[in-house]
Amino acid sequence: MAADPVRIEDPADPRISGFVSIRERDLTGRDGLFIAEGTVVLRMLGQAAARANGFAAEAILLLENRLAGIADLLEAFPPGVPVYVASAAVFDAIAGFNMHRGVLALGRKPAAEAEAGLLGRLPETSLVLAGCGLSNHDNVGSIFRNAAAFGADAVFLDETSCDPLYRKAIRVSVGSVLAVPFARRLPAQAMLHGLADAGFDIWGLSPRGEVLVSAIPAARRIALVLGTEGEGLPQGILASFRTARIPQRPGLDSLNVATASGIALYEIASAMGRIG
Amino acid sequence: MAADPVRIEDPADPRISGFVSIRERDLTGRDGLFIAEGTVVLRMLGQAAARANGFAAEAILLLENRLAGIADLLEAFPPGVPVYVASAAVFDAIAGFNMHRGVLALGRKPAAEAEAGLLGRLPETSLVLAGCGLSNHDNVGSIFRNAAAFGADAVFLDETSCDPLYRKAIRVSVGSVLAVPFARRLPAQAMLHGLADAGFDIWGLSPRGEVLVSAIPAARRIALVLGTEGEGLPQGILASFRTARIPQRPGLDSLNVATASGIALYEIASAMGRIG
Repeated sequence: MAADPVRIEDPADPRISGFVSIRERDLTGRDGLFIAEGTVVLRMLGQAAARANGFAAEAILLLENRLAGIADLLEAFPPGVPVYVASAAVFDAIAGFNMHRGVLALGRKPAAEAEAGLLGRLPETSLVLAGCGLSNHDNVGSIFRNAAAFGADAVFLDETSCDPLYRKAIRVSVGSVLAVPFARRLPAQAMLHGLADAGFDIWGLSPRGEVLVSAIPAARRIALVLGTEGEGLPQGILASFRTARIPQRPGLDSLNVATASGIALYEIASAMGRIG
Repeated sequence: MAADPVRIEDPADPRISGFVSIRERDLTGRDGLFIAEGTVVLRMLGQAAARANGFAAEAILLLENRLAGIADLLEAFPPGVPVYVASAAVFDAIAGFNMHRGVLALGRKPAAEAEAGLLGRLPETSLVLAGCGLSNHDNVGSIFRNAAAFGADAVFLDETSCDPLYRKAIRVSVGSVLAVPFARRLPAQAMLHGLADAGFDIWGLSPRGEVLVSAIPAARRIALVLGTEGEGLPQGILASFRTARIPQRPGLDSLNVATASGIALYEIASAMGRIG
């Protein structure tokens, strides 16, 4: 159980300084901290911390009328995690905008070494996603949600992709970014060659892919590669690896990358016998 | 070709009053008008108007430096459609916020009779979506995008679902709401029974559906029914019709409804021989 709730009366109270103006703060991602919003994400953070997967909670800030309803969620956090409670006026003054959800937590990311060692920790049979240049937080959040739904073992993002621990991405992922291990550290080619060296079949998803996603052969280890919307995967990657496509009506615009990831994961997870 | 461009110097010019403060206006949806943003949506509006499917453009407003780049798009509009051009300062003063895209059109919806007659106009072999209580504009926009990608013939929304011609939904749909015919007028049960009476096999999509989506048998006419996120389809609908599920890992949160619609449409369109 987290610590007993402490009432905050002053928005400038240094104990809740981590929650001040979070709309601006989460643009920086500094200090290895991130903001978790809402009860679903708070539950995921508690579960992540309990699994000792590297995530931790630094503090929890609640609107006073939310406390009773989430007492069970607070059970999951260690006693050292402070819980602060505030009135609506103080809460809004702290967070910098009207937070109707009234449930915030300040989380700490796993150490950088955890990301560096992720590839080596994957199970013998693995399905992973690899994102190249994914710059839209909604898409990245949705992709993690799909990864969780279809049991992907990890998500690898190239260094140009955006941070999945950005507030909006966490929310759209429904907290899945705290459950599906990820690394975001390498240039795209190095990331993909590292996966190939580790025994992964690499499949780039592209509207002009060679084979249908339903024809991707089952394998011990498969990495599905996603490119940014609009431009898609760079030519160098399309030329270096096999590619697959989702059949669809001809037209100007392809599927949204998150939806495409869901369909392709569904097909591949089915082929690998992981779902259904 | 639309009319010759007219330069606007005064944000209060009555000729561009339809574009004033569009952020607030599109919440009302009054007057049968809607706002189209960006070149992709403008192209879709031009195509819709050219197909005489009931959509029309009332006026086009462009940032001055965008005019040259989209001259070809303007070809699709009739000569009676005025084209207004403004500097960045005047453009922002009109629209009420910084419109970096610099491409806006004021569109007119089809008449209500067109919606009422949609069911009767569907082809003998049809795949349609039916949404019940879809209140999130992003989800509705994404669902239309998927409907277009997989060749759905129409989208039916119950009267509690949100308007697909809300600005955000149009943008997320990449203009597909202007291409896929839709109706939004009936209570859910009346809508679904109307589809059943018209020979549609009705399949509710639910995490607890009876059969896998891949096991939905091909049929001449299929309607895929989507419920709101979180609550899902009402029990009355689940009990009245057959249901299908997307296999996924057990967990608290199901797939996003738009992603689920994409996967289910992909399976059904494949079974009906419409893609691939």
